[in-house]
Amino acid sequence: MHKLTGPLLLLGSGADAASIRYATGFSAPDAVVYLRWKRRQWLVVPVLEISRARAATSGVTVLSPLDLALSKTARRDVGAWMLALLARLRCRRVCVTPSFPVGTARRLERRGLRLRVLAGAVFPEREIKSSREIEKISAVQRAAVAALRRAIRCLRAARIAPDRRLLWHGRVLTSEALQLEIGMELLRQGCQPGDIIAACGEQAVNPHACGAGPLQAGQPIVMDIFPRHATTGYWGDLTRTVVKGRAAPALRRAHQAVDAAQKAALGRVKAGVAVATVHRAAEAVFRRRGYATDLRGPVPRGFIHGTGHGVGLEIHEAPTLAAVPGRLKAGQIVTVEPGLYYPGLGGIRREDTILVTRRGWRYLAPCQVPREV
Amino acid sequence: MHKLTGPLLLLGSGADAASIRYATGFSAPDAVVYLRWKRRQWLVVPVLEISRARAATSGVTVLSPLDLALSKTARRDVGAWMLALLARLRCRRVCVTPSFPVGTARRLERRGLRLRVLAGAVFPEREIKSSREIEKISAVQRAAVAALRRAIRCLRAARIAPDRRLLWHGRVLTSEALQLEIGMELLRQGCQPGDIIAACGEQAVNPHACGAGPLQAGQPIVMDIFPRHATTGYWGDLTRTVVKGRAAPALRRAHQAVDAAQKAALGRVKAGVAVATVHRAAEAVFRRRGYATDLRGPVPRGFIHGTGHGVGLEIHEAPTLAAVPGRLKAGQIVTVEPGLYYPGLGGIRREDTILVTRRGWRYLAPCQVPREV
Repeated sequence: MHKLTGPLLLLGSGADAASIRYATGFSAPDAVVYLRWKRRQWLVVPVLEISRARAATSGVTVLSPLDLALSKTARRDVGAWMLALLARLRCRRVCVTPSFPVGTARRLERRGLRLRVLAGAVFPEREIKSSREIEKISAVQRAAVAALRRAIRCLRAARIAPDRRLLWHGRVLTSEALQLEIGMELLRQGCQPGDIIAACGEQAVNPHACGAGPLQAGQPIVMDIFPRHATTGYWGDLTRTVVKGRAAPALRRAHQAVDAAQKAALGRVKAGVAVATVHRAAEAVFRRRGYATDLRGPVPRGFIHGTGHGVGLEIHEAPTLAAVPGRLKAGQIVTVEPGLYYPGLGGIRREDTILVTRRGWRYLAPCQVPREV
Repeated sequence: MHKLTGPLLLLGSGADAASIRYATGFSAPDAVVYLRWKRRQWLVVPVLEISRARAATSGVTVLSPLDLALSKTARRDVGAWMLALLARLRCRRVCVTPSFPVGTARRLERRGLRLRVLAGAVFPEREIKSSREIEKISAVQRAAVAALRRAIRCLRAARIAPDRRLLWHGRVLTSEALQLEIGMELLRQGCQPGDIIAACGEQAVNPHACGAGPLQAGQPIVMDIFPRHATTGYWGDLTRTVVKGRAAPALRRAHQAVDAAQKAALGRVKAGVAVATVHRAAEAVFRRRGYATDLRGPVPRGFIHGTGHGVGLEIHEAPTLAAVPGRLKAGQIVTVEPGLYYPGLGGIRREDTILVTRRGWRYLAPCQVPREV
């Protein structure tokens, strides 16, 4: 646990929810209150969650609003839970995260509590994954690989129609059909699908466009699969771009450049290396091969995002792999995902989720896919 | 739009995200900044979202951090986006929601901005659904009904083994298998499954337990299906409890009581009626039939939650149907979901999502399921 100078108070409905799950093992759809003080931990949860919370946690005092002797109206008021818990413990000052809601913060202050807003991460140790966490994230990453393989099988089995659309089982193969196949496989693997990107050609110029409509031969098809495990709550993240049929030379060169950029970035990954070094390794490959980045036009083009991000109980968590301060640490799990995006050419991205080690890195789940299928 | 006395500033990564989607039609996985002032609207989004945000919105000025002439480090800092946008517009005071992050609030205040924290909902009109919203939520609710029907078909097709477990396609039928069938159907219907409850017997005593392991004949099987549409972002919510084979008399009576409580609660639903009246109608049925509620024991028992909640761009939104102030309004979409939970008997819940009208209410998607299958 992180050393703090005072009691730590979290409100778990939003950004703090992942931290509460990390600290206690419990997560709920509705707001819960977490307090840590002098090595003791408390959770206040709705009445209907009380036995589930007690079963999921150990070493945590789990209370319901009823245990705090609240009036009937205050029982539905999470701010009142906090005030009652802090009053009972005679706690007059608390540390909160920057994402703590300002409305609750002001209310606590009006009641005489002193609030300190933490500057950094509340649990910086969340960045360093334990062996159990590594296994959990690896399991999700293997599920993503299985789902991608399923999508590749569909694309392989598809025929190219004279109009360049793809036909699969007698129907036009669409982004939606590919998303469905990917989602079904993720469900079978115990994961929650959420958003799935299967975007073709021009659509993939927007890195976060999910894609819709018929897929086309000869165009890049970006498949970005980031499932969350239904029971552990951990995420995985995997992207491959493939072309059905043959790619034109310009597309093939860009595709090769993205693969080379990922290889170059991965080549720099090691504990102690600056995150900016990894990002610049990818940038350098693109620059050397003549792929310019222009962020200022109406449609940003080139390598228009960072090289990666941490993955854990949140899909985007620390660290960020970009032109920012900071160094890699052993035990971090991060994506390495350079991409190129040009109107007229389409979008291309390649992403793996890896474990940073003292000597380098390793895949959580390797994934071999040809560029053309 | 809601009348506010000053510029409205939202940070869309958490509670405010649904409001931003409501106001602009745009949603993103990462934080975005929304400002409304004098009938104009602005969005600041990451560079890689800029063309997607422009395509999704109309009448909104969409900016990226680059448009705000920020330094390279400030480009990744959402608080800096806000400060730059407000400075450019010479805006010195803003309204924020109670869920606005306290860290950002303090930073704005240190820079001389005056913050007013709104007391009520930022867009109270979100409670009143337009005909387009009603159709979107109805579509999700129909998907939930289709998924429930699929689960019922599995249960119908299952055989009861001598040990009371269920056999389906030669295997023991589990909660997980039922969740998978439900999830697959939701995917086919264009929805994101998320958590799915298919909990049997004692497990269902926790209303939010998803359920795991073999299902048993003669036990209540609670199926609570709350999908979100993959493209519209709207939710649906449906629960039925069924027994495979024959229920013992005590279970059958409790099952009938839950159905009667829902009927009684629905019987009170009409614009202008106090939400507490609806809740008390369900409570009264349970009390008359001898089902006591005890919230204080180690395992809460009886009718241990409210009668319902609003459904829209959030799965739990205003209004709350419980012993709280407030009256129903025409155009609200709410769940009506009484339940009983007793160790030894199991959990039973019945939930429909309905539209409140001037004269009463109507189902978004009716769902007839026998208590025993």
